[in-house]
Amino acid sequence: MVQTQKEIQPPSADAPPEIGAIAAALRSGDIRTCARLISRVERGEPGLVPLLQALYRVGGRSRIVGVTGSPGVGKSTLVSKLIGFWRKRGLRIAVLAVDPSSPFSGGAVLGDRLRMREHTCDEGVFIRSMASRGQLGGLAKAAGDALTVLDAMRWDVILIETVGVGQNETDIMRHASVVVLLQTPMGGDDVQAAKAGITEIGDIFVVNKSEHPEADRTVSQLEEMITLGLCLHPETTWRPPVVKTRAINGEGVAELADHIDDCFAHLAGQPEAARRQLRERAKHRVGELLHYMLEQRLRSDSGQLLEDSIDAVMKRDSDPYALAAELLARMD
Amino acid sequence: MVQTQKEIQPPSADAPPEIGAIAAALRSGDIRTCARLISRVERGEPGLVPLLQALYRVGGRSRIVGVTGSPGVGKSTLVSKLIGFWRKRGLRIAVLAVDPSSPFSGGAVLGDRLRMREHTCDEGVFIRSMASRGQLGGLAKAAGDALTVLDAMRWDVILIETVGVGQNETDIMRHASVVVLLQTPMGGDDVQAAKAGITEIGDIFVVNKSEHPEADRTVSQLEEMITLGLCLHPETTWRPPVVKTRAINGEGVAELADHIDDCFAHLAGQPEAARRQLRERAKHRVGELLHYMLEQRLRSDSGQLLEDSIDAVMKRDSDPYALAAELLARMD
Repeated sequence: MVQTQKEIQPPSADAPPEIGAIAAALRSGDIRTCARLISRVERGEPGLVPLLQALYRVGGRSRIVGVTGSPGVGKSTLVSKLIGFWRKRGLRIAVLAVDPSSPFSGGAVLGDRLRMREHTCDEGVFIRSMASRGQLGGLAKAAGDALTVLDAMRWDVILIETVGVGQNETDIMRHASVVVLLQTPMGGDDVQAAKAGITEIGDIFVVNKSEHPEADRTVSQLEEMITLGLCLHPETTWRPPVVKTRAINGEGVAELADHIDDCFAHLAGQPEAARRQLRERAKHRVGELLHYMLEQRLRSDSGQLLEDSIDAVMKRDSDPYALAAELLARMD
Repeated sequence: MVQTQKEIQPPSADAPPEIGAIAAALRSGDIRTCARLISRVERGEPGLVPLLQALYRVGGRSRIVGVTGSPGVGKSTLVSKLIGFWRKRGLRIAVLAVDPSSPFSGGAVLGDRLRMREHTCDEGVFIRSMASRGQLGGLAKAAGDALTVLDAMRWDVILIETVGVGQNETDIMRHASVVVLLQTPMGGDDVQAAKAGITEIGDIFVVNKSEHPEADRTVSQLEEMITLGLCLHPETTWRPPVVKTRAINGEGVAELADHIDDCFAHLAGQPEAARRQLRERAKHRVGELLHYMLEQRLRSDSGQLLEDSIDAVMKRDSDPYALAAELLARMD
């Protein structure tokens, strides 16, 4: 299914007809083609690889911004206001909202989509929710594929919205050049920000629901963490600002948008550091794809051996280490 | 490093001296040996596999209970009270607290450990925090190894505490037979419980900080979700109860402990369903180990090729799909 590098070309007269047609439709901004392709990506269609390769090779021009934070902090509302702000300036915006994976139901709740309804009739806005289909590693892989599709469309801004803490979410946030980390002033005791574990990936901190009496205290705590160097980004010497917002009525959104611009300007002023970041990101993406391919292969080749041998593991006559080693040996 | 199945035996006179000595120390309840071994597991020492295999084969007798929920809901306080409750009944308790992985710092915050200080002089209690060392998939693998160690010690209860949402956390929760899902009454709007995405893995729901005026409304919402079948566990016909607690002063903790007992009794009454669960859990563990082994191999074999080829990907002369396929081909 995966073709070698030489066989793949950016869309051209020689490319398979599907690739050329889809790439052309995407470049003309066709939202239906985009939506349909992301659905195919979500289903994990293996035949899509040549198309995704071609799309990757024409991408790299959109600004990718991540917005993350725990459930209930107001991410979707803030994203909706950011869209409104940027639309007034004529920017075209795509949103990829990645719901936490539910390994048992695979279901996504449509709340986010409902909250963004005001933008659904605007051709300059594309909003898409993704949910895990329960595949280990599948969500991050599919999200990366979806970003490849969006990136090839050259949206001015691609917003990735993910829910808070977790390896999957931080993995997805690695695709973003600038990450906005949202919290509310009601986050419990002082160590919560640090405990959330994703503080280090935030380029801009937002304290939403700024009308709350604890808002200023939360801002101070974050400023203190930054001063202590806990959130500094030494590779780019960027000092994360802390912004108060009240997403529900749009307060602070213009300021946040300015900080996002500043962060991109800062990156542009440090080409070597920016290059290192891109390099790490590309390596991460390769690793993610390799992981996925290995898993697909395992499923097809070793499923029966796993079924046949698992009873011995359960009876403790064997063990998971022995069986994993056997499966690995079988793959060679 | 990995030995074949036949060469491995449960600790006996024939086993390598280290394996026999460590296994004997663990079985006598030696906490220092346990702590040291988990540190080695965390460092990912490859030579530990034969020992872990031997330990796995003598395990399977501890009750493994998961406690999960977002930061700040009061997990550590509740766990501390549960320990106190069970200790009074003479049970030996181990706690494995898994902090969210921080891909940039790898750091763990010691708040949880501090909060559990009251139990640290009790030989019938073992408390251990783990944090990711930044390895993709490494945390879940190391947590599984640590559980293998604890399980071989035959603690009456092993509590796994993880922070909320995320694939890593839900993966770790799969090791538990009974999962307690904590939330607070302050969780924002109505869809938050569903959005958290881990509702389906909860066997028992706890609404902590029950003194809050919204507590009863949160309980009703959860009861409603359960009645609607959103949280039913059809394979075991278990209906998750909803318990109100106030962990800070121990209110509701006895009731929670009763529900945990009930859930184990329910499982015991459904041997076929319990067996299916164990089977899925064992398969998941094998997959996790295989993943880890593949990654180790990739790091050692393909690191240079990745370094050499990533620039072409960054320049978009190549793409991550092509490079991943090349790395995969190289592995064969």
